[in-house]
Amino acid sequence: MKVAVVGGSGYIGGELLRLLLGHSEVEVAQTTSDSQAGRPVWEAHPNLRHSRLRFTPHDSLEEVDAAFVALPHGATTDRIRALTEQARLVIDLSSDFRLRNPEDYDRYYGREHPLPELLGDFVAGIPELYRDALRSATRIAVPGCMANAAILALYPLSQGNLLDGEVVVDARTGSSGSGVVPGPASHHPERSGVMRVYKPLRHRHEAEISQVVGVPVRMSATAVGAVRGVQVMAHLSLDRPIEEGDLQRLYARVYGDEPFVRVVAQRRGVHQLPEPRIMTGSNFCDVGFARDGDGRHVVALGALDNLVKGGAGNAVQSFNIAANFEERTALEFAGLHPV
Amino acid sequence: MKVAVVGGSGYIGGELLRLLLGHSEVEVAQTTSDSQAGRPVWEAHPNLRHSRLRFTPHDSLEEVDAAFVALPHGATTDRIRALTEQARLVIDLSSDFRLRNPEDYDRYYGREHPLPELLGDFVAGIPELYRDALRSATRIAVPGCMANAAILALYPLSQGNLLDGEVVVDARTGSSGSGVVPGPASHHPERSGVMRVYKPLRHRHEAEISQVVGVPVRMSATAVGAVRGVQVMAHLSLDRPIEEGDLQRLYARVYGDEPFVRVVAQRRGVHQLPEPRIMTGSNFCDVGFARDGDGRHVVALGALDNLVKGGAGNAVQSFNIAANFEERTALEFAGLHPV
Amino acid sequence: MKVAVVGGSGYIGGELLRLLLGHSEVEVAQTTSDSQAGRPVWEAHPNLRHSRLRFTPHDSLEEVDAAFVALPHGATTDRIRALTEQARLVIDLSSDFRLRNPEDYDRYYGREHPLPELLGDFVAGIPELYRDALRSATRIAVPGCMANAAILALYPLSQGNLLDGEVVVDARTGSSGSGVVPGPASHHPERSGVMRVYKPLRHRHEAEISQVVGVPVRMSATAVGAVRGVQVMAHLSLDRPIEEGDLQRLYARVYGDEPFVRVVAQRRGVHQLPEPRIMTGSNFCDVGFARDGDGRHVVALGALDNLVKGGAGNAVQSFNIAANFEERTALEFAGLHPV
Amino acid sequence: MKVAVVGGSGYIGGELLRLLLGHSEVEVAQTTSDSQAGRPVWEAHPNLRHSRLRFTPHDSLEEVDAAFVALPHGATTDRIRALTEQARLVIDLSSDFRLRNPEDYDRYYGREHPLPELLGDFVAGIPELYRDALRSATRIAVPGCMANAAILALYPLSQGNLLDGEVVVDARTGSSGSGVVPGPASHHPERSGVMRVYKPLRHRHEAEISQVVGVPVRMSATAVGAVRGVQVMAHLSLDRPIEEGDLQRLYARVYGDEPFVRVVAQRRGVHQLPEPRIMTGSNFCDVGFARDGDGRHVVALGALDNLVKGGAGNAVQSFNIAANFEERTALEFAGLHPV
Repeated sequence: MKVAVVGGSGYIGGELLRLLLGHSEVEVAQTTSDSQAGRPVWEAHPNLRHSRLRFTPHDSLEEVDAAFVALPHGATTDRIRALTEQARLVIDLSSDFRLRNPEDYDRYYGREHPLPELLGDFVAGIPELYRDALRSATRIAVPGCMANAAILALYPLSQGNLLDGEVVVDARTGSSGSGVVPGPASHHPERSGVMRVYKPLRHRHEAEISQVVGVPVRMSATAVGAVRGVQVMAHLSLDRPIEEGDLQRLYARVYGDEPFVRVVAQRRGVHQLPEPRIMTGSNFCDVGFARDGDGRHVVALGALDNLVKGGAGNAVQSFNIAANFEERTALEFAGLHPV
Repeated sequence: MKVAVVGGSGYIGGELLRLLLGHSEVEVAQTTSDSQAGRPVWEAHPNLRHSRLRFTPHDSLEEVDAAFVALPHGATTDRIRALTEQARLVIDLSSDFRLRNPEDYDRYYGREHPLPELLGDFVAGIPELYRDALRSATRIAVPGCMANAAILALYPLSQGNLLDGEVVVDARTGSSGSGVVPGPASHHPERSGVMRVYKPLRHRHEAEISQVVGVPVRMSATAVGAVRGVQVMAHLSLDRPIEEGDLQRLYARVYGDEPFVRVVAQRRGVHQLPEPRIMTGSNFCDVGFARDGDGRHVVALGALDNLVKGGAGNAVQSFNIAANFEERTALEFAGLHPV
Repeated sequence: MKVAVVGGSGYIGGELLRLLLGHSEVEVAQTTSDSQAGRPVWEAHPNLRHSRLRFTPHDSLEEVDAAFVALPHGATTDRIRALTEQARLVIDLSSDFRLRNPEDYDRYYGREHPLPELLGDFVAGIPELYRDALRSATRIAVPGCMANAAILALYPLSQGNLLDGEVVVDARTGSSGSGVVPGPASHHPERSGVMRVYKPLRHRHEAEISQVVGVPVRMSATAVGAVRGVQVMAHLSLDRPIEEGDLQRLYARVYGDEPFVRVVAQRRGVHQLPEPRIMTGSNFCDVGFARDGDGRHVVALGALDNLVKGGAGNAVQSFNIAANFEERTALEFAGLHPV
Repeated sequence: MKVAVVGGSGYIGGELLRLLLGHSEVEVAQTTSDSQAGRPVWEAHPNLRHSRLRFTPHDSLEEVDAAFVALPHGATTDRIRALTEQARLVIDLSSDFRLRNPEDYDRYYGREHPLPELLGDFVAGIPELYRDALRSATRIAVPGCMANAAILALYPLSQGNLLDGEVVVDARTGSSGSGVVPGPASHHPERSGVMRVYKPLRHRHEAEISQVVGVPVRMSATAVGAVRGVQVMAHLSLDRPIEEGDLQRLYARVYGDEPFVRVVAQRRGVHQLPEPRIMTGSNFCDVGFARDGDGRHVVALGALDNLVKGGAGNAVQSFNIAANFEERTALEFAGLHPV
């Protein structure tokens, strides 16, 4: 199967290339980048020195079976008509088609959505929730990295109709989430070792989380010292007390058969709750929880590699489902410890 | 004035020695450590290579004007009778005398307080709140590093009677807060670059914060990749809407004359809200806030160096007040940028 | 094919397990650890949470086709007789059988080698130099991580008979090279962000390098802030001037067909010379060089992941050759960027 | 005494402001920056939030007693005539007047020096070597950060006429040495945790070191993961064997009375040799050495904070001497541990 990576010179683009170049069922026919057109991909992605692929301009895109689109937010919309003509299957990693309610674009992105009629065509790239719909999808909208971690952490509680009132979410993120373009806030001397609350309220991923879990979300985001990794911590109240064992069973029931979600909520050792570090490079999302003595308050946690299960890996997993490949193909990497 | 540092071989002890060796009004007569007795202080604290001081056993403590006590939690209680005989002024940096309600020790420390009758003798070492009481204090209990950051961040809202219901607090901390003793969780390969929620609920500092701000607190703690630094983020609801300008004025009024608290809540640049990194080595606590559009939800932030304003520096500031020295003595260091 | 990992609870052991659990041609029949006997492997290696393997005591080792031995230096010697009875193929990752000259053990390890008659039985696990010998090997001694990087960096110059006099080597290493046991030097607050020359002269890997490249080596080692990664920089003089193009051709000729060695010596971009960061988790060793204007002085560089091409990965590659599997099996991971 | 900081918006400029704002004998009358003109200094240097100083354009500089010049390399030369008219004492922190031999500018900076006749007017800002000359200096050229560490590490051996042949120097540096302007190589995801040999041969500081120590120097430079800190390691041969005790005495004799140089060469503990980490923010330079068994080969080490003893602090120390102030004024900060 022939695939293309549209917008291949950023960090998500590079991660798509890494995974797809190792995918046994596909051939990477093309990758586009206007800024890097003509240059070998290993100049942008030095871990891919063994590949001979070169970037071509966006407009040179030829017909492929599937197109992974890693353009800046807003740019997919501009190209979506052309993209759907050139590729039977379009997997978009931007925020352009993630929200179902067009008004949320006004509220969180400060602009009217130019093509609201297309929002309903996209299936959310969350295999754990929408596997059946993905099997026949032709357009997939991969969720934001923080949104995906929060959704997977909260989904069992939402499924159990346990959530009561607002959920307070803080997301912590490494520096790769800000992308490949240098700037003052990402300059190493300014960014090293920080604890920087860069979005204290109304983070955009609120809308993605809320539309899935069905309760209001108040979301902040903090930059910390890592390069890769997102961890989401949600403080929440339940509408009725729950026992520890029931919580364990609830999460196990929802995720017991999932290839890439592990429930981590232990009492012993260094790694008792989900930590993104050990998932570096892997497609796992670890989720976990802790319960207050009264059984009414819970902290739910999710952790993943923002470029993999928070982006490129999740896209490939969704693609594998839609293309009817074994779901784990190209995603077998276990993660590293220590790292 | 003659001072001693009791328990001088840990990180807080080392920071007390650094500050007091540079204090123009005191002589460090003695520092004690049973494990390091006989060894020069620079072996434990290589930044103090220029000092000729050596550790002596705890039992060798001689009479001094003031004793700074940096023993493990629980150990101050065992020695408090002797300490108050040998020093007119005792500044305790442990948690042994921080809580006013003895029952809180049962709840948060899992043991009955052995000397509840002494709890009332200690003045909390929070100059911004208790400066007058500190002037005549003979026993001072310095607050926990996270508690101090949270208290200073929330105090103006508490003063304004604005807090409504529970406050959700997450504290993020560098590795020095866990102390000088190596272990699996602090082993560099395991601790480097983590986002580790080591206490998802019921962190002990809850009790310290709650007894000051007067509302219930739900507190979690996360270890991140830095060595020094604590940042506290509090999500809270107000009992009535407040305008941005009124919030600004409220914080300015409370802290306008404080030598070591700065209000940081800007709209421009990289450093818009409090970050501990640039306070490394300094006695500043930066506090700030962000307000939701409805004026009813606020995120309050506090940041400090856990070993300075979160411990040794705050102790020296409290001591300066009690000893009638200029409050800033030995605490002039401005912090570093970049670092 | 049935394999065992003897000494599976350390960092090299964990990396062997990660690679071998993903190896399509082998079954990990057993992994031993006296300290962790009975515990699941994921307690020691949380990235392997999906595995159900448990540690067993060393003495419980049963017959296997191949045994990977990751015991502390010295301990392989104690068990080598038993090991060779239980496994047709023994791959040792300790330093016990790396040196051919028994006197080097006196000099560098401060003890007489107890079984010097066995030193000749081991083939060095350096596929790039000894691939033919490895095909029929039954005992393999995997080189030290720094030694391997230095050998691969210097080998083309040695092959070309260009080395003249002593080579000055500095190795820089992340913290995982010191192993899994916590101690004062690896405590995160003490180890974070260091530049620590912990061995200014006579590093033990000198002997391994020198016996291959054939000239004296003076070697120092510096700990830096990473967890994984080794970089070796060698300053050296040539016995005759060489042109840039001839150097390029020399390295290309030696490594052009190697699956895991890449020559990196560019004039453009951020990644001009070998850096270990982007090889995290991969089995690549990048080598490169820079040449002074006079053509007589060269800096040669090698970089690798100390736990992979510097240990477990190199062991698996050597094993693949000896077992007649495709050499890249289980080693396809490309490395990450950024990370 | 009135001083100005010309070029105050970079990292060295910020450090000069931090030190001079805390200097008891001076008033910072002015600081200039064309790019930041009109903005408060705390926008560029958030640790100086307590200062009310604002940047003014370079051309607005008024007469002062002393001008500290922290302009980009090359820019001091353009302004030197005007600067010497406006300030009796000029302390230049660029490389423009560091080399005595004009031909070295051709060789290392690739351009002819436009004002070679002024090179002799500048005294090198190395108090340990040129204290007497600094007392009457009116123009001071502060050495490069790596050069200063190497010179202080090697000077005792040079003084003892012990150096024989070429010295091989590797300098390791944190990211702040590259300055305040963001770019691809300093982007956090690309720079975090690196071991990057960015200058394998012919680093410019060679010339500064060689002109002092009197033997040829071969110098490389490596970027590592820290923000602050430079460490220099020199491999060298002696022209005659030396005993350990004689080396100790040699260094002690040269630096015994120095306020900011400490000799660190121990056999015990974690910190046996100079490490820059604990000097963060301080004006110390630690120097040390290790000696091979034959007494003919030595590794000499120097470590400092590149922005302090490697720049702004060294400038202030030189200034204190020239202005006849107590040499330690404003430089009392001891450094931090841990950090």
